[in-house]
Amino acid sequence: MILVMNHRAGDDEIEAVIIRLEKLGFQIHLSRGVERTIIGAIGDKGHLIELDLEAMPGVEKVVPILRPYKLASRTFHEEGTVIRVGNLEIGGETVHVMAGPCAVESREQLLSAARIVKEAGATILRGGAYKPRTSPYSFQGLEEEGLELLAEARAATGLLIVTEVMDAKTLPVVAQYADILQIGARNMQNFFLLREVAKIDKPVVLKRGPSATIEEWLMAAEYIMSGGNYNVILCERGIRSFETYTRNTLDLTSVPVVKHLSHLPVIVDPSHAIGKWRFVTPMARAAIAAGADGLMIEVHPNPIEALCDGPQSLTPENFAGMMADLRRMVEVTGRKMP
Amino acid sequence: MILVMNHRAGDDEIEAVIIRLEKLGFQIHLSRGVERTIIGAIGDKGHLIELDLEAMPGVEKVVPILRPYKLASRTFHEEGTVIRVGNLEIGGETVHVMAGPCAVESREQLLSAARIVKEAGATILRGGAYKPRTSPYSFQGLEEEGLELLAEARAATGLLIVTEVMDAKTLPVVAQYADILQIGARNMQNFFLLREVAKIDKPVVLKRGPSATIEEWLMAAEYIMSGGNYNVILCERGIRSFETYTRNTLDLTSVPVVKHLSHLPVIVDPSHAIGKWRFVTPMARAAIAAGADGLMIEVHPNPIEALCDGPQSLTPENFAGMMADLRRMVEVTGRKMP
Amino acid sequence: MILVMNHRAGDDEIEAVIIRLEKLGFQIHLSRGVERTIIGAIGDKGHLIELDLEAMPGVEKVVPILRPYKLASRTFHEEGTVIRVGNLEIGGETVHVMAGPCAVESREQLLSAARIVKEAGATILRGGAYKPRTSPYSFQGLEEEGLELLAEARAATGLLIVTEVMDAKTLPVVAQYADILQIGARNMQNFFLLREVAKIDKPVVLKRGPSATIEEWLMAAEYIMSGGNYNVILCERGIRSFETYTRNTLDLTSVPVVKHLSHLPVIVDPSHAIGKWRFVTPMARAAIAAGADGLMIEVHPNPIEALCDGPQSLTPENFAGMMADLRRMVEVTGRKMP
Amino acid sequence: MILVMNHRAGDDEIEAVIIRLEKLGFQIHLSRGVERTIIGAIGDKGHLIELDLEAMPGVEKVVPILRPYKLASRTFHEEGTVIRVGNLEIGGETVHVMAGPCAVESREQLLSAARIVKEAGATILRGGAYKPRTSPYSFQGLEEEGLELLAEARAATGLLIVTEVMDAKTLPVVAQYADILQIGARNMQNFFLLREVAKIDKPVVLKRGPSATIEEWLMAAEYIMSGGNYNVILCERGIRSFETYTRNTLDLTSVPVVKHLSHLPVIVDPSHAIGKWRFVTPMARAAIAAGADGLMIEVHPNPIEALCDGPQSLTPENFAGMMADLRRMVEVTGRKMP
Repeated sequence: MILVMNHRAGDDEIEAVIIRLEKLGFQIHLSRGVERTIIGAIGDKGHLIELDLEAMPGVEKVVPILRPYKLASRTFHEEGTVIRVGNLEIGGETVHVMAGPCAVESREQLLSAARIVKEAGATILRGGAYKPRTSPYSFQGLEEEGLELLAEARAATGLLIVTEVMDAKTLPVVAQYADILQIGARNMQNFFLLREVAKIDKPVVLKRGPSATIEEWLMAAEYIMSGGNYNVILCERGIRSFETYTRNTLDLTSVPVVKHLSHLPVIVDPSHAIGKWRFVTPMARAAIAAGADGLMIEVHPNPIEALCDGPQSLTPENFAGMMADLRRMVEVTGRKMP
Repeated sequence: MILVMNHRAGDDEIEAVIIRLEKLGFQIHLSRGVERTIIGAIGDKGHLIELDLEAMPGVEKVVPILRPYKLASRTFHEEGTVIRVGNLEIGGETVHVMAGPCAVESREQLLSAARIVKEAGATILRGGAYKPRTSPYSFQGLEEEGLELLAEARAATGLLIVTEVMDAKTLPVVAQYADILQIGARNMQNFFLLREVAKIDKPVVLKRGPSATIEEWLMAAEYIMSGGNYNVILCERGIRSFETYTRNTLDLTSVPVVKHLSHLPVIVDPSHAIGKWRFVTPMARAAIAAGADGLMIEVHPNPIEALCDGPQSLTPENFAGMMADLRRMVEVTGRKMP
Repeated sequence: MILVMNHRAGDDEIEAVIIRLEKLGFQIHLSRGVERTIIGAIGDKGHLIELDLEAMPGVEKVVPILRPYKLASRTFHEEGTVIRVGNLEIGGETVHVMAGPCAVESREQLLSAARIVKEAGATILRGGAYKPRTSPYSFQGLEEEGLELLAEARAATGLLIVTEVMDAKTLPVVAQYADILQIGARNMQNFFLLREVAKIDKPVVLKRGPSATIEEWLMAAEYIMSGGNYNVILCERGIRSFETYTRNTLDLTSVPVVKHLSHLPVIVDPSHAIGKWRFVTPMARAAIAAGADGLMIEVHPNPIEALCDGPQSLTPENFAGMMADLRRMVEVTGRKMP
Repeated sequence: MILVMNHRAGDDEIEAVIIRLEKLGFQIHLSRGVERTIIGAIGDKGHLIELDLEAMPGVEKVVPILRPYKLASRTFHEEGTVIRVGNLEIGGETVHVMAGPCAVESREQLLSAARIVKEAGATILRGGAYKPRTSPYSFQGLEEEGLELLAEARAATGLLIVTEVMDAKTLPVVAQYADILQIGARNMQNFFLLREVAKIDKPVVLKRGPSATIEEWLMAAEYIMSGGNYNVILCERGIRSFETYTRNTLDLTSVPVVKHLSHLPVIVDPSHAIGKWRFVTPMARAAIAAGADGLMIEVHPNPIEALCDGPQSLTPENFAGMMADLRRMVEVTGRKMP
């Protein structure tokens, strides 16, 4: 960590900072320039105390040197992580598509969706049983009944199940049914929930929060990993910007950036990011071209009748078309589809 | 709600939309222009189904007319809400200052902080017992022990207590100690928690999420109110923008906007928004000038030693200076300080 | 255009609005609901006066129905525009890559860069002679000498030349040398310059402003087109968001969105958007997968010695590798590289 | 400047960086830690070459230590700058209000506006003769005729004149009439125009660009100052965020931040930032409370008939009310109104 002292910082202030740093176990390198004095502090725990030091008189700014995450960092784990779930590998050679409706609405809807996505080549079924909705007056999900329907769809099709867990209270029941747990974007910094999910022995899809930097996203992964669950799949799903034509701004550059900074697999959810079905297929293609390990796509047997997110759901025909497109794209990138 | 049809929408598509709307109980007004056909749909439940309709063929966009919240809206409740807690009134003539440390760290620290803020004129003590921290390696709070210390500080000073509740699991214990519950910015759309808090008979400070529009913030209030708890105090604490010199961008204009759209009281937390103590006092003044009903300010007996957010905490001297400043400012706006 | 009246708007206010609209030549459709009165106004010039009407008493909001651009809109020009320049076609079957250094620095540097990009398959040479730099102390370009070097590189390689025009004063000299004029991101709403460029008979690459919505970008194109120059090539180059790991946030979804809303060709500049060479190749691939008609890429014979934007420039080897990658990607999308 | 080397950087890479830095005249401080090697480089011209160095192999990031502006910095000019124009002082004890219509529309409109704002206490008349408009179909200003009307209004009322200059071509004529030149937000990084304005002996109001950080804003001021014109008045007018209820997000915290970083005066334009007249008065009050040296306010004799920005213009009555409010607010802050 480096501390830049104010240009008017007195010797006593500089000394106070040094004493404090040495107490904390840092080695000190002092550089006195004409305009500024700079204090380099080398040690293990830099990230724990950076912020406090800006409160000391004479300190202008504190510049962290090491990234604040370790377990999620590629620096400490050079090879990419491959997560095994059922007989699938996520983060390996094969690109997986998780698809299905926004919300589980009924037995008929879910089983129909499951068959459609299975036939087109998806390997994992998505569907929300507990739904975080902006309005208290919107459909909030079938809850445990929805989980049971997901299990039934799994039994019928062989697809694995990914579904969102919204809070610690319902985590046990969700974990009982799901193959992969999903932390929604709005819960990315629900640290209590992250700590609870860390104790479960199931992979976790961690969606990027709409106002989260890539570093904060990796810090959220660090929460889960530091609690003992190393099977974190990162999912880019758009950040909030001033552009309103799309629901969010899909930050596809985060895919190669995450691959550079971290060893964790990363997938992309273009449906939620964009909010309009028409643009889902080209951006799914682009996600693969950017290096994503998988996709999460909303598909509904009949989007017009959807209780949730109809406008962004692909019809069965559009989904089949997208999958054919992707197959060619995946090959070109040297990977495979199942 | 108004539906703008695509310029190539066929008569059959227009008719299909009309039939669907009529089934949903809407009255229809059809306007066929040269370039576009527009369908006006008047009815009660417009906000429940707006989004789905964009999935119908031929529909270009759906424009909501009514705001999607009711209980929080000034349209349905013209007079400003005054929330009574202990012998204080929030949202009335008197401007209240909630002050104290970011985190409860120790008995000595908290009691000292409580006496300092009380003496300078604060009426409510803030202090976190459960701390949402970006890093899993940072201090996470004293938990229930922290709540006990808050209760002790209340007994010693007569200050009321506001403290954050992070999840449904710990809500019962937090509710047992706190006079006012706080929902943190990162939990503003933790809908499960909002529904649980709605069942508690205590006022709630609802912080604006860093990527939440004013409308989404009021929708979060609507969640709490629709669950039966009408005592919601909105708290502006900065939104995320591209500016990085300050931690967040304090959107003070939200104060008069919320006053216009809603009847709920609104307070401002400049400490978290800005992240640098130096700018807290001018922005606290500005918040009052903009019409805020109160402030939430971080004060630490010794910010240099703070375990959390030292750089944005006021020293006792700075806090006393700020309070003197505010007193003059409050008078000019025709309100009072206790 | 639709006007939503305030729920307390009186009959006199409603009538005043109607009278004003009728004077302006609109046909009126009045819908009185229980909670709101809505006035539909159909006519030609809706976009000219929308904003003013919000100043009238009783008007809550004005909702535009038609998009505010016409010449740039696909509604009025269904087929995609193909722009011919030299013997190239931009927006047609062939994907073109514009490549070269950020700034023209010297004869040797530019000619070397030109040969490198030509050999790897680029068809257009980019290079700045007038450089907009954040700091007045940075290298500001070789100006006319730079233009002469660009012309020499064109003569030597057969590449066409695209270069930025920064202001109306230097437009005549830039137009004398360039095959394609570039309007930089910071000048996207320099309306005076847009009007001047509209009078020149050369294609214009119009970069998206860092805080411009897609609609504002198309409005800037409309400025150029309404002045008589229909040969506008839109260029996505990232928008400003809170994410700081990359220089800007590349909004690749704008590619299919622009293709949907407009008939103009759209290219992508990943180098400026990202600011780090390491991520340029995957995002160039993704741009093609998303449907871009071309790319603009920074290449420097020796990025370490670059006077401008070295960190985002590809080396000759990396550029050749990217081009090989792209060739496969382009084929999969059913298009061609030259 | 500090260079953080990649954890895998080899000795040869470290040496290459050091050699390059020494050639550039820097003194080197090398710190080899267990996980990273850090190179401190002390010298004069750090800001000129920072970026290039990230292109060197083994360099992970370059951290600037000094701010990249000098003339605008309070470090090099401790006392606040007071700008004299006519018999007014901007940045001194007195708070000045610049008021008038968005656009000069007619002789009658402008003279009427001038009398209204003069009577209520404004000292400077604002009004656009050249108007940057998002749409090419909107009113673009009266141009030189508008400037003549401004001069006539000055003669009639004694108010000084501030008006926008949109480009270098019309700068001579604008400078002939105006007392203060205004650089609009969209031109904040029109560096060519900044350099031209630097040669004129008139104060410049420099509006903050909607996507400009405070540092970039000060860099734009540095352009003008380094060209010889030290009379720069900074004007906060809102930045672009995701919030759409207001036109932009007024970043009032920039007022005390600019006062801390720079010696230049800073004023606030709440009208453009917010876009809705209803919220202008509270935010004008808040701007003063935050420490602004002045305000720029849109006032129209009849906002309903305005050709530009009617919805955000105050009526004469509202403006008079605002000025009365401000007078009390200014006194409380220890300053004066004329």
